[in-house]
Amino acid sequence: MREEAGDGIGSSAEPVISPSGPRETIILGIDPGSRKTGWGLIASNRGRPRYLASGTIRLESEALLARRLVILADALEAILSDHRPDECAVEQIFTARNARSALVLAHARGVAIFAVARHEVAIFEYAPNLVKQAVVGAGKADKRQVNQMVKALLGRTQLFQEDEADALALALTHAAASRLEKLA
Amino acid sequence: MREEAGDGIGSSAEPVISPSGPRETIILGIDPGSRKTGWGLIASNRGRPRYLASGTIRLESEALLARRLVILADALEAILSDHRPDECAVEQIFTARNARSALVLAHARGVAIFAVARHEVAIFEYAPNLVKQAVVGAGKADKRQVNQMVKALLGRTQLFQEDEADALALALTHAAASRLEKLA
Repeated sequence: MREEAGDGIGSSAEPVISPSGPRETIILGIDPGSRKTGWGLIASNRGRPRYLASGTIRLESEALLARRLVILADALEAILSDHRPDECAVEQIFTARNARSALVLAHARGVAIFAVARHEVAIFEYAPNLVKQAVVGAGKADKRQVNQMVKALLGRTQLFQEDEADALALALTHAAASRLEKLA
Repeated sequence: MREEAGDGIGSSAEPVISPSGPRETIILGIDPGSRKTGWGLIASNRGRPRYLASGTIRLESEALLARRLVILADALEAILSDHRPDECAVEQIFTARNARSALVLAHARGVAIFAVARHEVAIFEYAPNLVKQAVVGAGKADKRQVNQMVKALLGRTQLFQEDEADALALALTHAAASRLEKLA
């Protein structure tokens, strides 16, 4: 596929490389849930993040789990096809105090991981306190602090929805972790 | 679609209804796992079961979970497309003594439920002791007893592989439960 010059006048036979082009990595963060799944896309240029898109996939809470899993997979499929991320970050899962809800969450997480892997996108997982450490600088930060730092790091003017902020925080954590790996 | 007479000579303009035709329900039992997933298909004619097919989907234990989930979904997709079951039965999931392995299992179970639901096949779940009660007549039967009763009920000459037997037991339980519902 040939890119055209950005001025819209004529076209060039030379490939046009945008300043951030070849070094930019598109990262998809996913915060899966059986009722709401947050997602966030950033572009990372040597660890410097740029906001691309984000949202919350809402699953009808009345619907059967089976139905919700299909809706979740379809929605992620659309995001993956539209944005073609290079890498994906999800939260590590632990046996929560509420083991029952962790089991339901794991169903949604399995479907999310499947949807990403089917697109042959590599998936990385990060523990929640590592995400907080990476984004806020404190492993015990609360959700609002995470949201505010995500907003600041991405140069946005408004706070995100909670699951959206968590997904973007995962993407930012992965961008930072990848930069460290590349420096090492 | 028109069916042809079973003798293979000529064809009939009349629709040919096989004796078990319209009342037969194809039931898929699935015993999901993150390493091995058993599956079994039976046809149920007013609760009377007939063996169709079964097997074990083996997932390379070396592969990443993400990769295994894709292989599992693809394999179930092929089974669903080939056999077009009417209904599906899976085991209920509980927080096991090993909470960690229950969480991994739930990822595979989520993908299995998703694959079935995408084919718009209704899914029913049964507790393990209900399956043992239905098949063996004792809620605390061991795996070998289940396997032997599955073999006997389906008129087979050999024992099944363990996960295959569990999947067929689920399908048999659903056939029995559906018959009870229809009588009620």
